[in-house]
Amino acid sequence: MVQDRTGKPIECKAAVAWEANKPLEVCKVTVDPPGPGEVRVKIEATALCHTDKYTLSGEDPEGKFPCILGHEAAGIVESVGEGVKSVAPGDHVVPCYQAFCGECRMCTSKKTNLCSKIRKYTGSGVMASDEKSRFSCNGKTIWHFMGTSTFSEYTVVHEVSVAKIDKSAPLDKACLLGCGVSTGLGAVLNTAKCEEGCTAAVFGLGTVGLACVDGLRLAGAKRIIGVDLDNNKFERAKDWGCTDTINPKDFGDRPIQEVIVEMTNEDGVGGVDYSFECIGNVGVMRSALECCHKGWGECVVLGVAGSGQEISTRPFQLVTGRVWRGSAFGGYRSRIDVPKLVERYMNKEIRVDEYVTDVMGLDDINKAFKAMTDGLCLRCVVLMP
Amino acid sequence: MVQDRTGKPIECKAAVAWEANKPLEVCKVTVDPPGPGEVRVKIEATALCHTDKYTLSGEDPEGKFPCILGHEAAGIVESVGEGVKSVAPGDHVVPCYQAFCGECRMCTSKKTNLCSKIRKYTGSGVMASDEKSRFSCNGKTIWHFMGTSTFSEYTVVHEVSVAKIDKSAPLDKACLLGCGVSTGLGAVLNTAKCEEGCTAAVFGLGTVGLACVDGLRLAGAKRIIGVDLDNNKFERAKDWGCTDTINPKDFGDRPIQEVIVEMTNEDGVGGVDYSFECIGNVGVMRSALECCHKGWGECVVLGVAGSGQEISTRPFQLVTGRVWRGSAFGGYRSRIDVPKLVERYMNKEIRVDEYVTDVMGLDDINKAFKAMTDGLCLRCVVLMP
Ligand SMILES: NC(=O)c1ccc[n+]([C@@H]2O[C@H](COP(=O)([O-])OP(=O)(O)OC[C@H]3O[C@@H](n4cnc5c(N)ncnc54)[C@H](O)[C@@H]3O)[C@@H](O)[C@H]2O)c1
Ligand SMILES: NC(=O)c1ccc[n+]([C@@H]2O[C@H](COP(=O)([O-])OP(=O)(O)OC[C@H]3O[C@@H](n4cnc5c(N)ncnc54)[C@H](O)[C@@H]3O)[C@@H](O)[C@H]2O)c1
Ligand SMILES: [Zn+2]
Ligand SMILES: [Zn+2]
Ligand SMILES: [Zn+2]
Ligand SMILES: [Zn+2]
Repeated sequence: MVQDRTGKPIECKAAVAWEANKPLEVCKVTVDPPGPGEVRVKIEATALCHTDKYTLSGEDPEGKFPCILGHEAAGIVESVGEGVKSVAPGDHVVPCYQAFCGECRMCTSKKTNLCSKIRKYTGSGVMASDEKSRFSCNGKTIWHFMGTSTFSEYTVVHEVSVAKIDKSAPLDKACLLGCGVSTGLGAVLNTAKCEEGCTAAVFGLGTVGLACVDGLRLAGAKRIIGVDLDNNKFERAKDWGCTDTINPKDFGDRPIQEVIVEMTNEDGVGGVDYSFECIGNVGVMRSALECCHKGWGECVVLGVAGSGQEISTRPFQLVTGRVWRGSAFGGYRSRIDVPKLVERYMNKEIRVDEYVTDVMGLDDINKAFKAMTDGLCLRCVVLMP
Repeated sequence: MVQDRTGKPIECKAAVAWEANKPLEVCKVTVDPPGPGEVRVKIEATALCHTDKYTLSGEDPEGKFPCILGHEAAGIVESVGEGVKSVAPGDHVVPCYQAFCGECRMCTSKKTNLCSKIRKYTGSGVMASDEKSRFSCNGKTIWHFMGTSTFSEYTVVHEVSVAKIDKSAPLDKACLLGCGVSTGLGAVLNTAKCEEGCTAAVFGLGTVGLACVDGLRLAGAKRIIGVDLDNNKFERAKDWGCTDTINPKDFGDRPIQEVIVEMTNEDGVGGVDYSFECIGNVGVMRSALECCHKGWGECVVLGVAGSGQEISTRPFQLVTGRVWRGSAFGGYRSRIDVPKLVERYMNKEIRVDEYVTDVMGLDDINKAFKAMTDGLCLRCVVLMP
């Protein structure tokens, strides 16, 4: 139930990250009313993603503590600030860490989804209108995170970061379209633009990798090779659409790219048309490039590597026609495309429900962090009070 | 004058590379008649390119001695082997190191110019029909090089490697379209597909780099930043079309990519739309990627690095939208596209004459190798006896 407290601060529960590498603390915070161009949202459900964990670990150079993490969520608009026209109280929304203003040089280029309008503010934990935070706890400022901060009953986001979605979509599922699932689908459909009959390799069969597999199924790929170090991931991957699954451990010291080139050899030239790195391992990023077909194979990097880590290869790989690219939020223009993804989900064209393997309450959020890397967990959804 | 000695061996002069890292020796060689699907060509003019030098240095793992180097040439068909239909004696041709058969899986894909039909034979110095060489000297076998071996009065090439060109084109100029000039033009026009109003950086202002600049001028680029360590290259680069020229030496320890990003900064986000590496230096390949604009900038690697050298960068460069690709022979399908390039040259749409800075006779070929890396030399053309 969303109570309208327009213009007034709200006291509510949130999981605060006081310091790097410490458990979150669920406590009472004050959420100020939305400023001009801002929207206050009652979060209904939020999933956890690796970026939350990465920032919590202290490795993220942009990480700023104390903060409220969380960026894969769905909720209901409680109130809006001055000038906000695109959403109104009661609207169902997905807060998006990647804004889309439609007006900046990035947005108008039509070549990228990386809107730069508020990047500088979301990168430093504040709101654009006054460069201040809307969160505090006993008078102490708590910073925003990725412009979303969804580990809170209420959060304040920029209007340009809010995607209004179909009210009939279940919020405890639609939240996944705020990051991981969209990222994998879009890398296939927008970034690589995979075509019918293509061949592909997907490295890492977590949520992002499986969403790539789902995208490849949609695109009509004829062969989808799933690669993971954990054999337990293969049954599910086949259910999603993998035609082959391989574990690099089964090939000793042999580079896995060699194995894939051999598996796909036709007329003496092997390799896949497309590959997707969904792990964040720089060694695997190299394999993903080098398993691509000479002349046209494209490797899309989705994984986020540890800070300072580098990828490398011989330039001959590129000169002979392979392409190395990357994808952020699947190339989707958040505010415009997330509502369309929700529709595709409601039409049962894409999988979403199937990624929810764990559900918990906010008080168990530290357990949710642990669950994230346990066994067969894909997404752990936290239901807000 | 081309004498028809159909079916008989020809004795003629050729520059033989007997061993790695030794001067070439101009001597009498025997050139066997063309086998099935082969063409014997009287070479009229051949330029030197860095690949000849690279293979002669012994660094090229595919280099096989003794051999006859040379791959940037033009000549006249002397006789053809069984089954050859696309050319006839008297036709003017450019031998192409990259074949185009139109039938193999690479050619029919329409996604690449890297025909694989005879790659295995040209890579090992023999002809496809019998896996033998057509060259000998006093009974000793001399291997072919890149399927072209143009440092010889007569050479034998595969029909799929021969581009038939307009007879009115001067052969001592058209030869340049056999490698360097086409490579630069095509990287811009085919590989990157640069569009009107784009911005670009070209690293290395030799023949390949200047041909990129010429391609960018044709594409209608609004800004072309030329980068070279040698200030003497800048006047010419401006004449070709560079709007800016910069020397990394003038910026001390500052990475040149930073300088370019700053030069092109608009609304707080800088970088060029396209960059081209035309040197073969792996450090520069990184700069070329990193000077690209977030969201869409594409770096095309043309330079050939020393064997074993690797390129590297942070994967974040890719995830935030930069693309790393390469180009071989400018993406041109040799047999089909070289004749069209010759036409564009005859229509004065593209520059060719201007790259010829030195002209010598075959007896001076070792001087030509030296000239290649001297001062303002672009292409040294060797006129055959
Ligand atoms: N680019 C973006 O916009 C974006 C968005 C969301 C997530 N990500 C990144 O995508 C990556 C994947 O996210 P996820 O939620 O699917 O993660 P996940 O941990 O659920 O899945 C990773 C999978 O990779 C497997 N794996 C680990 N090391 C491997 C190796 N060396 N070889 C083969 N398999 C290996 C694991 O067993 C696991 O199944 C993360 O790096 C995350 O930060 C990127
Ligand atoms: N991909 C292909 O199909 C293809 C075809 C032909 C040539 N190539 C390669 O292209 C490259 C260029 O060929 P070219 O004939 O123009 O060579 P070139 O030697 O004439 O030109 C290279 C230029 O780079 C400059 N340079 C050297 N080091 C530099 C540095 N660190 N920073 C800035 N500038 C630097 C030199 O001063 C020179 O002007 C070579 O590596 C060649 O092997 C590739
Ligand atoms: Zn995420
Ligand atoms: Zn924008
Ligand atoms: Zn060459
Ligand atoms: Zn072919």
